[in-house]
Order: sequence, then C-alpha cells, then structure tokens
Amino acid sequence: MNETTPITMKDIARELGVSVSTISRALKDSPRISQERRKMIQDYAREHNFYPNVIAENLRNSRVKPQKLIGVIIPQLNHYYFSSILSGIEEEASACGYRILVAQSNEKYEREAAICQSFYENKVCGVIVSQAKDTQKYDHFTKLVEHGLPLVFYDRICTGLNACRVVVDDYLGAYTAVNHLIGTGCRRIAFYGTSMKLEISKNRYNGYRDALLNNGIKPDDSLIRYCDNRASAEAITPDMLALDPPPDAFFAVNDDTAIGILYSAKKLGFRVPEDVSICGFTNGERAIACDPMLTTVEQRGKRVGEEAADILIGQVEGSIPMDKVEKRIVRTRLIIRGTTR
Amino acid sequence: MNETTPITMKDIARELGVSVSTISRALKDSPRISQERRKMIQDYAREHNFYPNVIAENLRNSRVKPQKLIGVIIPQLNHYYFSSILSGIEEEASACGYRILVAQSNEKYEREAAICQSFYENKVCGVIVSQAKDTQKYDHFTKLVEHGLPLVFYDRICTGLNACRVVVDDYLGAYTAVNHLIGTGCRRIAFYGTSMKLEISKNRYNGYRDALLNNGIKPDDSLIRYCDNRASAEAITPDMLALDPPPDAFFAVNDDTAIGILYSAKKLGFRVPEDVSICGFTNGERAIACDPMLTTVEQRGKRVGEEAADILIGQVEGSIPMDKVEKRIVRTRLIIRGTTR
Repeated sequence: MNETTPITMKDIARELGVSVSTISRALKDSPRISQERRKMIQDYAREHNFYPNVIAENLRNSRVKPQKLIGVIIPQLNHYYFSSILSGIEEEASACGYRILVAQSNEKYEREAAICQSFYENKVCGVIVSQAKDTQKYDHFTKLVEHGLPLVFYDRICTGLNACRVVVDDYLGAYTAVNHLIGTGCRRIAFYGTSMKLEISKNRYNGYRDALLNNGIKPDDSLIRYCDNRASAEAITPDMLALDPPPDAFFAVNDDTAIGILYSAKKLGFRVPEDVSICGFTNGERAIACDPMLTTVEQRGKRVGEEAADILIGQVEGSIPMDKVEKRIVRTRLIIRGTTR
Repeated sequence: MNETTPITMKDIARELGVSVSTISRALKDSPRISQERRKMIQDYAREHNFYPNVIAENLRNSRVKPQKLIGVIIPQLNHYYFSSILSGIEEEASACGYRILVAQSNEKYEREAAICQSFYENKVCGVIVSQAKDTQKYDHFTKLVEHGLPLVFYDRICTGLNACRVVVDDYLGAYTAVNHLIGTGCRRIAFYGTSMKLEISKNRYNGYRDALLNNGIKPDDSLIRYCDNRASAEAITPDMLALDPPPDAFFAVNDDTAIGILYSAKKLGFRVPEDVSICGFTNGERAIACDPMLTTVEQRGKRVGEEAADILIGQVEGSIPMDKVEKRIVRTRLIIRGTTR
C-alpha cells in the first residue's frame, strides 16, 4: 500500500512459494508448520529485514513522532453493546494518549474492506474490529497484517485469521444462567439462539446444553429455536407456550429477544416469573426498562473495549510481542432481577 | 498552535486593540459592529491575508491532498441519543469521503479542552461538538475558530459563541406533546425538567407552558419539578400523586424520567393511561421496552448528526460560506403509544 514497508508477508510467500498464512504461522513459531520450514521462513524474513510490525518499529526508532491513531471498525454505532465497547476503547486509548478513528461497516463486507484501506491511508497504528455479519472473505484483514499493523478483534472474531481477540465467556455466561434457572426449579428450559455458524451462538448453546446435562436434564430439541429479535420472539412464543407441557423457562441470546418472550407470555396470561422464568443476554438499557426487570447475563462491553485497546497499544508500543496472538476473555456476570424466581 | 496560519483573529485583535469577538463579528459583517469599524477590520484582515478558514483554502488551493478528518466530541458514547447522533455523523462523513476522530469529554471541561488541542494537532478539518455539562469557559472553542477551523455544535450548544448549530425543535416538540395530552382529556399536567439555564430545558418548558395557556389552562407551579432521571422520578412521584387532586398527566424531559414516573404510578395502583398519562422525550431503546410502551417525542439523533456533518463539510468544501452562521432545526415527531389515552 505504500513504500515504507520494505517487504511484506505476501512478498515472502510469493518468493518461497507458500501461502501467506504459512508465513504468518511460521513467524509466530506455530507448531502447525514443520520445524524445518519454520526455520527456513524465519531466516528468510530476518535476512530481508522483515519486521512483523513496521509501525511499532517506527514508534521505537523514528525521531518523527508517528500519529497515535487507532482505527476502530464497528458494525453499528446505534447499538447499545457496540457503543459501550466503543466507550471502553475510547477511554483506554485516550488515557494512553491515542485518538480513535471510528467507522461503521453497517454489516457489509465492501464497506469493511474500504474502511481498512482508508484507515491504512490515514496511517493508523493498528485496527480494532468486530467483523461484519456479511463478511466471508478476509483479504482486507490479511492485508493489514501483512503490512505489520496490529489487528485486534472484539465480539465477532474472524475465524479465518489467528489474530488477537477479546470476547466474553459466552459458554460460562450461558451455563451460569441456565444453572440458575434450574436451581430455582425450572426444568423445561427453551433456548432461543442464532446461527450455529457463529462462535458466540455455538458457545452459548453449549453452555445451555451442559448446564442441563450436568443437572440430569435431557435436552429437548423441540425447545430449541432460531430467534434473535423481539419481533420473531413475539411471533413464535405463543406456539412454544401452547406445547403440552409448556416450557417453564426461556433463555434468550439477547435482551431484545427476551423482552419479546416476556410480553408474549404476559399477554397470554402467564405470570412472570411464577409460571415462566426468562433470562436474556446483554444487560443494556432495555433490561431495566421492562416490567418486571430482566434477569440477564451482563456482557460488560466497556471492559471488552478497554481490553481490546490495551492489547493493541501493547503491541504498538512493544510491551506485547507482535508475534503473540493474545486472546482475552472477559467474564460475564449474571444479573438476577424480576423475570426469574 | 502551528505555523501554517499566517495570522489569527487573536493577532488582529491584539494589533487593533479590540476583542476577538469584535473581530469575528466584523468579519461576519455583523451590524452589531459599527460600519466604520467593520470596514477597518475587514481591510486589515485582507491586507494581512487573513482567511477565516485556512483549511478550506488549503483544500481548494493546495496540490497536497489534506486529511479529510473531522473531529467529533461527544459527552458520552454510552448513551443512546449521542450514539445515534454519532451514527448520523459517521454516515454522512463516510458518504462524503471523510473519516471521523471521536473523543468523549465525559462532561468535563478539562477533557474537552485537551481534545480540542489534540484534534488540532491531528490536523482535523473541523470539529463537531456537544458541549460538556461542566463547561463554563469556551476559550478552547474560540481557539479553533481563530485558526480557521469550522465548528458545529449539536444538542448542547455553546451560548457564548455565535457558531453553527443543529438542534431539535424542543419548543414545538414539547408543545405538540402537551397539546396531545390536553386533547385526550388531561388537565392537570405535571412537568419534570432540568435546569432552566440550559437552552433545551427552557425551550421545552416554554412549549409546555404555551400549550397549557393556548388551551385556557392556568399553569400551576406546584406541578413543576426539577427531575431528569429515573431514580429522582421514583423518589418524587409518590408525593406528586398524593396531591389533591393528583396530576392526570406527566410530561418528562427524557424517557428515563418518564419510565420512573410510569413504574411509580403503577406501583401505587394508578392505571396508565386511564388514570395517569405519561409522555417522555427521546424515543430510545427504553421507550418500547417498558410496559405499556411509552408515548414520547422522538429526537431523531441520526438526522441531527447528518445535518451537523453536512454543515461542517459544506464549510470545509466551500459550498457554505465560512462567515455564515448556519443554524438548523431538526423537527421532532410525537410517537403515540400506550402511556397516553
């Protein structure tokens, strides 16, 4: 993309006739690459003055103060969880003397790719990103990595890249919530989730399932539904509650969905939490606005943002080696309110 | 702040022995400055090659592409209304090929001033800002203006500066809401607002008052309270409802406060909306999460953000003259839901 980089991973890959991911893995000393091959690639990189993070080198060596700018890609600004993450990123960055460039992908691959390019042109020292729902390719991310820019994912990680990331403990969050439902006497617990292709959804489902199994309850497939918003929840919940026997609890992938369940149940004359318990996931503004207030798993967006910025700045400034794939997990918290017994 | 500006308003003010605001007004051809004085100042500025907007000049004349960066100061990212405004700014900026630098003032003057300075150092082409609650001085804003940077306020404007701004029609929004309450049979309408020092609060109060007067209802001071959040609303509403006769409606300065009133009233056995009608102001995520859903004045944050970015980019690119103080008002919308009859 510009001329300050003497050689990129792509160049090395081309020269040695291997893939970029092989180069990347070898430079990270991954055991997935044979030791011999690793050594060969590492030697080649050293001989050709390849620095995995040119920006970090600049920061350390240059007399010209580089721009302390971090690029942040956010799927949607107008969304409680993402704006709390952004708030955490901004706080941490600001405390370390960095400013953030912010752009919305609107869940589109094309826009995400264009933002990566423009961030590069704006000479950011690294990028923090949650992948758009729409994104299938990740060439735009590998381009940044090839040019030595640290890249940190939050929330929706790119499964194709072994990059730094900050996520919440979706598995444990779900496990704890469902365990609480069982502990308060619920036995037929419905699960409303999203596509099992998403890491988040898979982990939450597994947490739900394991909590049932560990309590001696056999998972019942008729209680599992694909549903991740209020309108769908209001559409499918009456049928769920018409089952014989009906579920005595619902665990939903987010608060919006949980609120749809809550009002559907109330409308049909079910008492919440006496007849039906409900637990969400997020703990946004909505969770305390509904009646009764929602029991939910708090996702701690601000903390996720702070951790993401901390990793990125650590790599830029050298306290975290560029070849380390730092993965941090932020602990969720179960917030017990009025929708559970 | 740097050497690219040949002369600033401050320099001219010092030279001519007048205040910076006099220079600013004279250059904007304000009739508040005598014609003779205006001509003298304008001539001096012209002779000394003073361009009110150096950045705009650069954009037009320079062969070097300047950074299309807009600085955005936001009191709190983690706040529905502000994040919708930011979303609108980002959309508009992005569509015009600009990127945004985002920083939170956390409602503190010191932080706001530091952000202005750092935005200047980051060579932004203009700044969009909502003033921190804490800010009393505005030297940090005048500094930017003196250096020719366009400045656009949104939501909380700086009353000390005659700068471009985008606000919503608080007066008309409140008037329409209270008029609706009266039209549905309410007569004793309580008003929960904030400090009358804030433009927003004053305008909403005046809208409330005029709606009463125009409907032949005498305003009753015992129904006016300082209250702008849910906890306070829950603290004071029982006393309000113990009045004899109690209010038959409440108009609140934001949705959070309105929800506090709603649940206090329900708890005391009042039926909403049969016994008590409630109307908020914002229309955020909360407004549809509460039960019943809240009637509220929608503030259209995204639109406010788009308009603010449109003015700023217009001034940077020359389609809006730099000496024009552009003031735009975004129309609110009354959203009628379940808390009013």
